[in-house]
Amino acid sequence: MSASDARLERLVAPVADGLARMREILARQVAESSAAVADMTGHVGRFRGKQLRGALVLLAGDATGNATDEHPAIAAIVEMIHLATLVHDDVLDGADVRRRVATVHQRWDNQVAVLLGDFLYARAFALSTDLSSRLASRVLAEATRRICVGEIEQSTLRYDFDLTDARCEAIAGAKTATLYAAACELGARYPGGREDLGLELSSFGYEVGLAFQIVDDCLDVVGEEAVVGKSVGNDVEDGKVTLPVLHAYRRASPAGKARVREIFTQPGLERRVTLLREACDLAGGVESAMARAADLARSARARIADLPPSSARTALEDLAEYVLERRW
Amino acid sequence: MSASDARLERLVAPVADGLARMREILARQVAESSAAVADMTGHVGRFRGKQLRGALVLLAGDATGNATDEHPAIAAIVEMIHLATLVHDDVLDGADVRRRVATVHQRWDNQVAVLLGDFLYARAFALSTDLSSRLASRVLAEATRRICVGEIEQSTLRYDFDLTDARCEAIAGAKTATLYAAACELGARYPGGREDLGLELSSFGYEVGLAFQIVDDCLDVVGEEAVVGKSVGNDVEDGKVTLPVLHAYRRASPAGKARVREIFTQPGLERRVTLLREACDLAGGVESAMARAADLARSARARIADLPPSSARTALEDLAEYVLERRW
Repeated sequence: MSASDARLERLVAPVADGLARMREILARQVAESSAAVADMTGHVGRFRGKQLRGALVLLAGDATGNATDEHPAIAAIVEMIHLATLVHDDVLDGADVRRRVATVHQRWDNQVAVLLGDFLYARAFALSTDLSSRLASRVLAEATRRICVGEIEQSTLRYDFDLTDARCEAIAGAKTATLYAAACELGARYPGGREDLGLELSSFGYEVGLAFQIVDDCLDVVGEEAVVGKSVGNDVEDGKVTLPVLHAYRRASPAGKARVREIFTQPGLERRVTLLREACDLAGGVESAMARAADLARSARARIADLPPSSARTALEDLAEYVLERRW
Repeated sequence: MSASDARLERLVAPVADGLARMREILARQVAESSAAVADMTGHVGRFRGKQLRGALVLLAGDATGNATDEHPAIAAIVEMIHLATLVHDDVLDGADVRRRVATVHQRWDNQVAVLLGDFLYARAFALSTDLSSRLASRVLAEATRRICVGEIEQSTLRYDFDLTDARCEAIAGAKTATLYAAACELGARYPGGREDLGLELSSFGYEVGLAFQIVDDCLDVVGEEAVVGKSVGNDVEDGKVTLPVLHAYRRASPAGKARVREIFTQPGLERRVTLLREACDLAGGVESAMARAADLARSARARIADLPPSSARTALEDLAEYVLERRW
């Protein structure tokens, strides 16, 4: 276990019991009598990850004095939706297949990944319809729609260096921040009637999620694969203009700008991130983006400052800092 | 408009008003303020098709005296789920991309097709959570799960000629029959309390849907592209062992069986369907499968024979015959 993982485990300790229940529900929901499906869902474990989104449901519930017996089920539903988005992220487009198929180990093929993700979404929605209140179904169906819209927009805005910061952040936030926000909102508000508190925690979750995504975007351009634990430079390969790149681009001379565009769009280029580091002040862009992430985390912490002191509130505050941790 | 389309339009005439409302709801739901998404959902129209599933919700509602103001919304939700499955069907796997990408016009890339399908699912579930009863959310989330499981199983049973008829039909039925069944069940039972009638109409829908799918499978091996209106031989290319092929295979000599397996699995083979027609008695297999489809349609009609006479009941009976129409 890395130091970062150990720290996270301490952070979520206040909801350890709820997380254990969440994992039981998750295992039961993902199990399926069909051998073909069971074979695949067994491998979904590789996506398990930190289960931060589920922890947020439980922590927001505890910190607002709103925890119910149904919170672990909501946490499981949120994690299933997250799993579904990860499985669907594994679907490669035609260009990727041609470019990467020889190097990327594909456990499943595209069509099966699509169906497995759909299966997880359907299970998640089915489980949500068994809860006593419909609020979870509503909030999560709407969050899922927003995630899809954001990702579709992101795919159409590749190579666009004229983005405003607001637009760049809205797109960066679509995936991570939207689900973080829904998790915190439901934690604070489910089964209903506490709308203001729900919205405040939703904003907390959105800001923490956006900060997390910005840090992730920074890692993509300046991280070392061995430290980050996954390949870097993917966004640049995909033509995604993230906040640190946008800020570095804006600081560049006209010639530097032209070079950045060329590096993004020229087909067949190798070591694209290395070239990008040479072409513009990426470190400056990262510093500026990280300052924005820190602002977001600060704003998030202020939103929960008036909640009664509790180990859950402290954990949420610490989580807002945790996502800023530099891992490079 | 083809003779078949004109006949279908007459068939669904008893619920023309409901269908018009369904289309309004559908257009509003699929509209999206994001220009990027609107551009895509606009093209979803190409999948509009016959909207048979939506019509089944309305006809089952009228035929059972169970129609409510919410039935057109349920019909729209069912159509959106159907659209989502069609959009996801457009995702090609790695092998397909390599094989077909040069010839198939791809309006979108795989990743965008995945997101657009997810968007449609999310919209459908979000709309279902606005209905007065949760029955629609429950039945449709469960139907979606079953569709995914069936399709995943189908993908693992390619090239399997030792299938039983029951297993072959269960897989053939997963996609079409499951959603037909859910449409009819909700029509007859929504918002709740008429469970027996709902189950009877669910069985009606399942049998009609399965009959439709078997006819479709027959068309794939003996249809002419100009008549069927879409390319044929896709199932054979994909290695899917459908009911007519299975029946033809069983009638073949040991040498014929070996040849059929060879045609299915040998890489790079061209004109696979033509070779299959030469290798075994496909016409006999088709005849046998069509007899099964006719049995299913007959059983379906019997299930609704005791409903009070109405134009909607007549339409459902006629629909059970309509799906058998030979289009080759």
